Amino acid sequence: MQIIDGKKVASEIKLEISEKVQQIVAMGGRRPNLSAILVGHDGGSESYMMMKTRACEECGFESALIRMEPDVTQAELIAKIDELNKDESVDGFIIQLPLPKHIDEQAVIEAIDYRKDADGFHPINVGRMALGLPCFKPATPSGVMLLLERYGIATSGKHCVILGRSNIVGKPLANMLIQKAYPGNCTVTVCHSATPNIKELTLQADILISALGCPGFVTEDMVKEGAVVIDVGTTRVPDSTRERGWRLCGDVDYKNVSPHCSYITPVPGGVGPVTTVALMLNTLLAATNGHRE
Amino acid sequence: MQIIDGKKVASEIKLEISEKVQQIVAMGGRRPNLSAILVGHDGGSESYMMMKTRACEECGFESALIRMEPDVTQAELIAKIDELNKDESVDGFIIQLPLPKHIDEQAVIEAIDYRKDADGFHPINVGRMALGLPCFKPATPSGVMLLLERYGIATSGKHCVILGRSNIVGKPLANMLIQKAYPGNCTVTVCHSATPNIKELTLQADILISALGCPGFVTEDMVKEGAVVIDVGTTRVPDSTRERGWRLCGDVDYKNVSPHCSYITPVPGGVGPVTTVALMLNTLLAATNGHRE
Repeated sequence: MQIIDGKKVASEIKLEISEKVQQIVAMGGRRPNLSAILVGHDGGSESYMMMKTRACEECGFESALIRMEPDVTQAELIAKIDELNKDESVDGFIIQLPLPKHIDEQAVIEAIDYRKDADGFHPINVGRMALGLPCFKPATPSGVMLLLERYGIATSGKHCVILGRSNIVGKPLANMLIQKAYPGNCTVTVCHSATPNIKELTLQADILISALGCPGFVTEDMVKEGAVVIDVGTTRVPDSTRERGWRLCGDVDYKNVSPHCSYITPVPGGVGPVTTVALMLNTLLAATNGHRE
Repeated sequence: MQIIDGKKVASEIKLEISEKVQQIVAMGGRRPNLSAILVGHDGGSESYMMMKTRACEECGFESALIRMEPDVTQAELIAKIDELNKDESVDGFIIQLPLPKHIDEQAVIEAIDYRKDADGFHPINVGRMALGLPCFKPATPSGVMLLLERYGIATSGKHCVILGRSNIVGKPLANMLIQKAYPGNCTVTVCHSATPNIKELTLQADILISALGCPGFVTEDMVKEGAVVIDVGTTRVPDSTRERGWRLCGDVDYKNVSPHCSYITPVPGGVGPVTTVALMLNTLLAATNGHRE
């Protein structure tokens, strides 16, 4: 059994990106710029922002954080997006989600110029991804793909069972893994809340990816001997032994499942660290040829 | 075993559409207009066009066929698309595929205003469909959904196995059938050329959809007793007993498979007739509220 070390992969890729940025700068180019709009003062969003800003520094990117108060109107937010769309010094940008309830998230996402859509949430990027065309891919499923790739895990012809059908993880992962590409070319099964016989299906998985957000959902009896298990779940569960009062918990009963796996991601330290890296790769892509070439 | 009668469903829906059009006209509105651009003189494309024009008449739509010679440049074709994008009398339009080799099909598709994209091929529509948002859906997978719906076939929690991962059938069907909707809410498995154990998977299917274009691929031993079988395959196979020299052949060995099914589509007369109807429904949607509301 091999533990997939997301932190190590993330460090390697950030180093590779920073080397590319140095080359760009050495040839007279400018540093890639990833900007972000943060509405309000949610604690979780603030710490995500800090992580992203730090990753930008490690990659040698410029970054800017635009703060807006939680009572901002949708029109004001979209006007700011328009500014960033037009600002030639900005290669890519993100709007930190969730947004306050009075704002239509989908309208905001669709206001982003898809050529600067570093989060890969614009329907044009979602569609181009489904069609197998160059695009910006969403960070979490891209992170999963990076781990499979960096560990050289065989995927072609493998049966990949995905638990969860969210728009930001399960569905895009399914769309990536059926493409005739590496990583990919998998037979893909998507299970979700309406699937009556989940265990029967997970037991067939060569690659099992769980993105449910149900701590400990995947138990030993659900996993085939030698399977690759990727745990995308990150739920905060109360833990009085920790100073902050909680710990991150994955979907997989790691202790009992891991002895049966060929590869497994821990939580934390598995998929998490590489998701930010995927965002950096999108920004580099936007800053260089863009995804349209 | 019940045979799914695609011709009957198609007639019913066209009648419903024509009644809606009569209401629109009675209230002073104008008839929906579906236009089409046909490049060249391919026999198959010509007959598709005739079918579509006839369906427009049956639905009470206006239609226009714009012919361009096979040596048309991409720029000329896109200029014509731009005209249709701007023409307020045109609600929706299609470009008949395939296009001559010197033209970049994807660039042409992306030149269509997605609000008039009756074929549902624009990446914005593909992406909105994957996200479960209102959109124009591609005709063939929509046709499959219409058959499931009109026959009241239970889909929620059922295991749907799709054979084929093309951009126009397999992938969009998978994206439709995992949505939390009816028809849909299925556990979905997509198999393709790289799947080593197809039979093992098809035997688990409550709903088996084949879109491979391999005549007779699905045999009796691959289908679970009581399964719903939808055959999207339409391959022309030589047949000297027919005047035209060929007949249409599905992916399913109908004679031997059908006795084991709860429902099955024949070829021809199954999915085929409803695909044109799906195009008419997109046009009606474009002519009324549009898919954005």
